[in-house]
Amino acid sequence: MGSIRTDLAIEAQEMYKEKNSVEEIPGTEVKEYRDGAMKVTHVKILDNDGELAMGKPKGDYITIDMPIIVHYDNDSKEEVSRVLSRAMKPLIKLDESMTALVVGLGNWNITPDAIGPKVVSQIMITRHLKQLVPDSIDEEIRPVCAIAPGVLGLTGMETGEVIRGIIEKTKPDLVICVDALASRKTERVNRTIQVSNTGISPGAGVGNKRMELSERTLGIPVLAIGVPTVVDAATLANDTIDLVLEDLIKNATEGSEFYKMLKEMESSDKEQLMKEVLDPKVGDLMVTPKDVDMIIDSVSKIIAGGINISLQPSLSLEDINNFIN
Amino acid sequence: MGSIRTDLAIEAQEMYKEKNSVEEIPGTEVKEYRDGAMKVTHVKILDNDGELAMGKPKGDYITIDMPIIVHYDNDSKEEVSRVLSRAMKPLIKLDESMTALVVGLGNWNITPDAIGPKVVSQIMITRHLKQLVPDSIDEEIRPVCAIAPGVLGLTGMETGEVIRGIIEKTKPDLVICVDALASRKTERVNRTIQVSNTGISPGAGVGNKRMELSERTLGIPVLAIGVPTVVDAATLANDTIDLVLEDLIKNATEGSEFYKMLKEMESSDKEQLMKEVLDPKVGDLMVTPKDVDMIIDSVSKIIAGGINISLQPSLSLEDINNFIN
Amino acid sequence: MGSIRTDLAIEAQEMYKEKNSVEEIPGTEVKEYRDGAMKVTHVKILDNDGELAMGKPKGDYITIDMPIIVHYDNDSKEEVSRVLSRAMKPLIKLDESMTALVVGLGNWNITPDAIGPKVVSQIMITRHLKQLVPDSIDEEIRPVCAIAPGVLGLTGMETGEVIRGIIEKTKPDLVICVDALASRKTERVNRTIQVSNTGISPGAGVGNKRMELSERTLGIPVLAIGVPTVVDAATLANDTIDLVLEDLIKNATEGSEFYKMLKEMESSDKEQLMKEVLDPKVGDLMVTPKDVDMIIDSVSKIIAGGINISLQPSLSLEDINNFIN
Amino acid sequence: MGSIRTDLAIEAQEMYKEKNSVEEIPGTEVKEYRDGAMKVTHVKILDNDGELAMGKPKGDYITIDMPIIVHYDNDSKEEVSRVLSRAMKPLIKLDESMTALVVGLGNWNITPDAIGPKVVSQIMITRHLKQLVPDSIDEEIRPVCAIAPGVLGLTGMETGEVIRGIIEKTKPDLVICVDALASRKTERVNRTIQVSNTGISPGAGVGNKRMELSERTLGIPVLAIGVPTVVDAATLANDTIDLVLEDLIKNATEGSEFYKMLKEMESSDKEQLMKEVLDPKVGDLMVTPKDVDMIIDSVSKIIAGGINISLQPSLSLEDINNFIN
Repeated sequence: MGSIRTDLAIEAQEMYKEKNSVEEIPGTEVKEYRDGAMKVTHVKILDNDGELAMGKPKGDYITIDMPIIVHYDNDSKEEVSRVLSRAMKPLIKLDESMTALVVGLGNWNITPDAIGPKVVSQIMITRHLKQLVPDSIDEEIRPVCAIAPGVLGLTGMETGEVIRGIIEKTKPDLVICVDALASRKTERVNRTIQVSNTGISPGAGVGNKRMELSERTLGIPVLAIGVPTVVDAATLANDTIDLVLEDLIKNATEGSEFYKMLKEMESSDKEQLMKEVLDPKVGDLMVTPKDVDMIIDSVSKIIAGGINISLQPSLSLEDINNFIN
Repeated sequence: MGSIRTDLAIEAQEMYKEKNSVEEIPGTEVKEYRDGAMKVTHVKILDNDGELAMGKPKGDYITIDMPIIVHYDNDSKEEVSRVLSRAMKPLIKLDESMTALVVGLGNWNITPDAIGPKVVSQIMITRHLKQLVPDSIDEEIRPVCAIAPGVLGLTGMETGEVIRGIIEKTKPDLVICVDALASRKTERVNRTIQVSNTGISPGAGVGNKRMELSERTLGIPVLAIGVPTVVDAATLANDTIDLVLEDLIKNATEGSEFYKMLKEMESSDKEQLMKEVLDPKVGDLMVTPKDVDMIIDSVSKIIAGGINISLQPSLSLEDINNFIN
Repeated sequence: MGSIRTDLAIEAQEMYKEKNSVEEIPGTEVKEYRDGAMKVTHVKILDNDGELAMGKPKGDYITIDMPIIVHYDNDSKEEVSRVLSRAMKPLIKLDESMTALVVGLGNWNITPDAIGPKVVSQIMITRHLKQLVPDSIDEEIRPVCAIAPGVLGLTGMETGEVIRGIIEKTKPDLVICVDALASRKTERVNRTIQVSNTGISPGAGVGNKRMELSERTLGIPVLAIGVPTVVDAATLANDTIDLVLEDLIKNATEGSEFYKMLKEMESSDKEQLMKEVLDPKVGDLMVTPKDVDMIIDSVSKIIAGGINISLQPSLSLEDINNFIN
Repeated sequence: MGSIRTDLAIEAQEMYKEKNSVEEIPGTEVKEYRDGAMKVTHVKILDNDGELAMGKPKGDYITIDMPIIVHYDNDSKEEVSRVLSRAMKPLIKLDESMTALVVGLGNWNITPDAIGPKVVSQIMITRHLKQLVPDSIDEEIRPVCAIAPGVLGLTGMETGEVIRGIIEKTKPDLVICVDALASRKTERVNRTIQVSNTGISPGAGVGNKRMELSERTLGIPVLAIGVPTVVDAATLANDTIDLVLEDLIKNATEGSEFYKMLKEMESSDKEQLMKEVLDPKVGDLMVTPKDVDMIIDSVSKIIAGGINISLQPSLSLEDINNFIN
């Protein structure tokens, strides 16, 4: 994978194929299908070879591609929520009585990192009602609790420590983590949802989350839902130069000095170049859409809807929304 | 104490004295002094008699009265922060290396209940720096972490469960809890800060926090800082009728039917009356100042300042504020 | 009306009837009807006698009573929006091509005074599209513009000055003003919508708006929509004492000194008494529900929905909501 | 200037010099000096030649460069406010009794475009006090009013219409406009303040403001204060390719095919190329720092401070801040 990282399995496989000029990835299975208007891609990393090739742990990664228009249409949001809930199904086995803990990762002070906390605020919270006033609530409603613990810089505590402590006291059967991710490509920003059963790996997204949240570290199944919400300015710079070089190559005479020089620029050389020319200036810059606040609200609503539908199969989305309100 | 409750020891003693027409309270010591422009009252509950009389656990309760004007003057806010830090001193014994966890109780969605979360966002967070990049930070700086866990209705988890779980993993030496309190009197709203070493008792404030946070339940010292930010509409109604009855009594002929009738209205009768006439209408109404958002910001800044000064005695308030910023 | 004022015509008539122990009010017509689950009251002040009796200018005042439950159910909100749009119909004559200016009065920094600004943010704004890119928008869509000018204390300018200046430049055919009102009774808070064609009178609501916005001062028809969102703490105190006095009277022997004394307490005496006992303490206190933020959001959504339906009869509410989003 | 535009005179002159490989610009005078830790550049466009060369109207453009560190230090913010107030002095002639209107341009829903509205909320508003309760306020205090009218897409009205209407009614003697600007260079973002007496030209910043606000259109002096808060993603892409091409040129043999090809890429060709490769992807993307919310707060505080000091020379900044609070 080199030094350029992506949180998206779908990008990892694209990058592997491109770098190695192959069509198949060892130890990996990829299935594509449509669910309504959405394209869904299921990447399965089967073994060590797959882990090595993809730079990601064994398990399932399901990606939903949504057209940007969904953020401007309420019915489309509901449709994506339903697609998401169907995509979650093969990844979690849920008895009716199992308690779920939804964890919203990320920093609520940084808009594109706030998806996790925003989702948590729209989850249908029922665990306390089931415990304290069970008669007030239908039997088939699942106990659900949720927390947005904040990031290391705001709390002084590793998110992993906090969540492990809470799990030991409250004993949920399942954790669903929601986080903002980093993407390599501007065209994926706010248009891709990834669901996986492999936990959340460290170092992702806008902020810094350092301790893995996974079945291995927490002892219960962990479902991770993520959406890329920014591209690093450095990544954009890199993509730009790639595209321009490709264009120059197309226009160059094959075999010429120019052609060879351009062809010889390895990804790592380019990155080094990027660093030289951009680092002092670009610092901690990120690329986001101008209407980022509105779009992050939309993404959060979609994901919360998907989680609520999954966790409360006996209720309609309308009932859920009235409850939350 | 009857059915009317107060979170403030200073009110509990007033109510005891009034009800029993005495000047001294058994098992209780009260000292008043001035610190600059502020009146400070130190109520010490010494034994079981004191606990019974006051309806509060044994320990120290220090109350700072501040003029409402402090919320409109930045220098005054700093002065109250300093008075608060001096009031905290006799209640916590702090070695330099001890780690403190600041817990902001209350619901960030309800302005007058949001003091805890707002204070947390202004605490100087250093624990992660001391652990991860110790060279980046002066040796005499204390490790501090903080969290605002949210309320039961938002998380589905008892705050006590959450905080105990976090403490077991992160092992702080001291907890400082900050919360909005309920007062009996509109004149105390946002003008009184209470510091105590007895933990936070259940059922206080605007929201509902049900599990005691105290040295007994958490195993480490707990300092509680609270400010009354609302009066229940029902309490205001009750106060009103009291004042009017007093006025009527003054104007009535002593010994007359009227005089006797008024004198005979016991506190509990009146409360029953209040319930009859008000309950269906007043429901969950609260009384707040019109500029409640601004005032809650001011109160939070004052308390955060006091905590920061206490926890980082080697730093000036200016250094602290630049760090937080 | 004496010194106790109300913004609601429906309360003004109740107070007149009570004070004068009559069933009919001179120069006034009152009709009640149901529209779905809502009770609608149409008060018509016909002449000078009516103006004098009611303390309000000649014209129509339509009041919608909604159960508090509507704020917790999205479908109910839509239903009230539709009832509101039907109540507006007799009060505005709207040619298709007429341009409407929606004015959101009140202070966005004070939650219960923020209804006007919150409504403005949810109005379907089309005037600029009709002017600049007419091909992008259906012909039957009405040009609508909107502004929340802020209050005197925030801008240093009378709202009336600001709005008159804007109207002279932008030449709308109609103004719709939205504002938070004051009510006498806690049971009406956030449960009553008043629509009138008489403009907005000075001094209403939580903040201070001093210059009348009406057809007389602005030269074009003015529709005012208001919702009581707070009760003054002083008003609550007054109501309380009234209810208690009534209760005492019931229990007193008719003809006794006590009975006479209670009966003799005139409304104005009581108010004076209120002032004496409460003023120094109650200051600028208001009574609101604890979940005031959520409820103000709901009220704003309902009113914006009603205005949008009225102004864009060719569109469904769903289309409108997608447009706004 | 070609098709790449900048709001900053300091960038316009850099671009002119670079493009024309000259050191002097016709009809333009440039002076640099230091004020404390800040570099100040005063660009004077003297005549038509200067206007043509710079693509900006005749007048004064004063630029303050601040180190990024000021946003993390309260004292530094105050220092920049003072430098700003000194930079404003030569551009406005202010009798003591003149009324100033501060206009905050931009869209409060888009963080990097919200500087104008955020500044307005921190201006010391006095006009209404001078008019309504003159005894409550010192004589030497200047009448100041302010408004953030919102953007075309939110109001449906041109900002120019709205402001002209308000000025005709409220008759201020001077307008100070505050706006977010666009910069060509990421290193200037949030580090440069430009003050000018030429009004605000259309099309600037993150949003779209289309009608010139200037002495010519408003009839009273207009001072414009702007800060670049974003760089277009397309601009970053363009800058990137420029830097890389420069690097490639350095490494190419002079006179070679490669060298010539690179040298021949005109700015406009490159821009066309950028459009081709980026447009479908980059759309409305912008580049901002990750802590944009905090930094925009800081920038707003600095500018509001500078304006307040300028307009109220008889008061200390501390008095002003207490007043605003």
